[in-house]
Amino acid sequence: MITLLSDFGAQDSYVAVMKGVIAAIAPRIPACDLTHQVPPQDILAARFNLMMAYAYFPPGTVHLAVVDPGVGSARRAIALQTPSGFFVGPDNGLFSGVLDREPVLMAVSLTQSRYWRTAEPSATFHGRDIFAPVAAHLASGVPIAQVGDRISPETLVKPDLAPVVERQLQRGESTIRRLVGSLQYIDGFGNLISNLPASAVPSGPWQLTIETSKETPNGSWQIPGVKTYSDVPVGALAALVGSDGYVEVACNRGSAARALRTAIGHSVAIGDTVCLDIAVA
Amino acid sequence: MITLLSDFGAQDSYVAVMKGVIAAIAPRIPACDLTHQVPPQDILAARFNLMMAYAYFPPGTVHLAVVDPGVGSARRAIALQTPSGFFVGPDNGLFSGVLDREPVLMAVSLTQSRYWRTAEPSATFHGRDIFAPVAAHLASGVPIAQVGDRISPETLVKPDLAPVVERQLQRGESTIRRLVGSLQYIDGFGNLISNLPASAVPSGPWQLTIETSKETPNGSWQIPGVKTYSDVPVGALAALVGSDGYVEVACNRGSAARALRTAIGHSVAIGDTVCLDIAVA
Amino acid sequence: MITLLSDFGAQDSYVAVMKGVIAAIAPRIPACDLTHQVPPQDILAARFNLMMAYAYFPPGTVHLAVVDPGVGSARRAIALQTPSGFFVGPDNGLFSGVLDREPVLMAVSLTQSRYWRTAEPSATFHGRDIFAPVAAHLASGVPIAQVGDRISPETLVKPDLAPVVERQLQRGESTIRRLVGSLQYIDGFGNLISNLPASAVPSGPWQLTIETSKETPNGSWQIPGVKTYSDVPVGALAALVGSDGYVEVACNRGSAARALRTAIGHSVAIGDTVCLDIAVA
Repeated sequence: MITLLSDFGAQDSYVAVMKGVIAAIAPRIPACDLTHQVPPQDILAARFNLMMAYAYFPPGTVHLAVVDPGVGSARRAIALQTPSGFFVGPDNGLFSGVLDREPVLMAVSLTQSRYWRTAEPSATFHGRDIFAPVAAHLASGVPIAQVGDRISPETLVKPDLAPVVERQLQRGESTIRRLVGSLQYIDGFGNLISNLPASAVPSGPWQLTIETSKETPNGSWQIPGVKTYSDVPVGALAALVGSDGYVEVACNRGSAARALRTAIGHSVAIGDTVCLDIAVA
Repeated sequence: MITLLSDFGAQDSYVAVMKGVIAAIAPRIPACDLTHQVPPQDILAARFNLMMAYAYFPPGTVHLAVVDPGVGSARRAIALQTPSGFFVGPDNGLFSGVLDREPVLMAVSLTQSRYWRTAEPSATFHGRDIFAPVAAHLASGVPIAQVGDRISPETLVKPDLAPVVERQLQRGESTIRRLVGSLQYIDGFGNLISNLPASAVPSGPWQLTIETSKETPNGSWQIPGVKTYSDVPVGALAALVGSDGYVEVACNRGSAARALRTAIGHSVAIGDTVCLDIAVA
Repeated sequence: MITLLSDFGAQDSYVAVMKGVIAAIAPRIPACDLTHQVPPQDILAARFNLMMAYAYFPPGTVHLAVVDPGVGSARRAIALQTPSGFFVGPDNGLFSGVLDREPVLMAVSLTQSRYWRTAEPSATFHGRDIFAPVAAHLASGVPIAQVGDRISPETLVKPDLAPVVERQLQRGESTIRRLVGSLQYIDGFGNLISNLPASAVPSGPWQLTIETSKETPNGSWQIPGVKTYSDVPVGALAALVGSDGYVEVACNRGSAARALRTAIGHSVAIGDTVCLDIAVA
């Protein structure tokens, strides 16, 4: 099986072109869209969608991901093998979420043009000319070592996304344990998904603070931690563990992104700071 | 074959996650998107799209439908078998359009967690954890009686959608036979689809009246009944029997929903009253 | 394999209905979406997307294309066979881009209703009742000569799209060789794709002029010819050979359609004149 992720949108036939290239090489391999509505050139959004979906597919699935602002420049074209399957696309951080979760068995730089559609690829559409044909050959059983030159996983590009850190705060009498992370995705429902893991959430009371990077009087916002959406009234904001295993901010029957924009006066964004506060006895 | 319908949209990888879960259980079963652009939590729009599409698929197809505002609450998760195939999703009225058209051979409440992805499903994504795996098992040949406890079809939730009723009106000298129904769907082209059946349309002259629920001086609108779009000028409204077998209001080369909003000053909505008037000799 | 192209959008189940009809006739033939977001009734946009994608699919693929403003009128329903495969849809110019690239081996008018879903097709949905079933039968191996009556390829409808012509211009001392074409597509990224072929681009300096059909003081705009997006600053316009083999106008990390609208004060459109100027020594 081959999955496809891109920022190509649905208006044009660019995605279909990649599927045609795949079908011409590997006619019996089914193709499955991951999403093609990643905001243009948004590597972090692509990273999150891939990280959230890949593990549900059968072992050996080939994941083709083309969000590629550097197409035509010196950025590397790569293929990776992990215990779950294969990943093909540009070396720009797209696969860093996957690689936080499982080891790289082999990484190669795509240099063997005999597995491309043409030895003279277009400067603007490596998805069609390099990535899709390589993915089709991998899905057909070509060993990854054949499609390029081995590279060290340590050299793979990593995106700017702050890791989770822990601090102690003193607030009057009480001590607060604070976990500081960041927003890693805003989904189509307006849920704000942080990189704070489910394990950070205590059994007792907690609250979440979002601090936007913009300097405004209302630049920070507190949200109560609950179990499910319906623990708060319709239209109210709630912090909870989402289906992805991360702490997220949701709005019961609404959009948290929109509700916060209304409350704060501007939008929150991927990368904004998220703090989880737990009162320490 | 498995079809998928949801309100998940195209931006995120939620639909792909369900397809991955299906492929991991039933790798040889093709998946076909019905639509994932149902307006969020709009059970009536989902009901209509499912009702209009299911009968075209091969017998035995499994239809997975996840528009689920009550996820995590006490609403039942169900599977149904009919002469056409299988239906899996929440018990919230989603399948009521199908059940107006064919009998239920068996209905079960999904209680057998060995057919779920995990015995502890997420509170917010039963599509991934319960519905998709059950659909994949049904498509693989697991008997429906095994995936849950038998329930009575009479207990299935029915949506609020006014049935068609008939009245006699006196207008001056003449008598009018009036069929009163409601708008059951507004499609992406802006066609307003009522629940009045094709059989209601006479061979002689007729006209359609739309009465919006909002109180405005122009809250009602008359539209001439014709045979095809091109019987009226470009931009004009026409009432006709649509390809779905229902009386609908269309606009020749335009959007009836937009044209009526312009004319009336506000939008028409699913549930608004539609009257078909026939002069009686 | 069957590809599907339409202007049905993603909101409704119309595309799924066609796939259901195909699966009921040819259950083992995979279906691949080309795009369903063609602007409503935009035959030229559909023509371009089909022309750009069909050649990447395996030989013998059946391409089903339904952008059909004349549905229900006297326009012919046709099927074509070319060296690449089969094409099924209305005779309105949709296939003219393909036919600029390869010969017609056979063309038929769809008259054999035993290959339709019903002998009494809906007046508004030939995609479901005629085109999808005929495509499924062709993909299953029914010879094209059986599905209709042979027609002459010369009688196929051709769209209004100005061909490329060459002129000589005198500008002061210098002579300019000018190739005059037109915009044939504006893609989802806002790239403006002309019908000027890559072969028109000289190795020396050149520039592109876009002349909109609207009469405004700023109705024409000059853009420098370059090799790749990154030859111009972020936000700047560039003329280059795109991945499709045509001269296009792009905006480095932006939308050329939007940038030109801002600069000119109104939108450019498919059909607007595009001139490629080369100074002659």
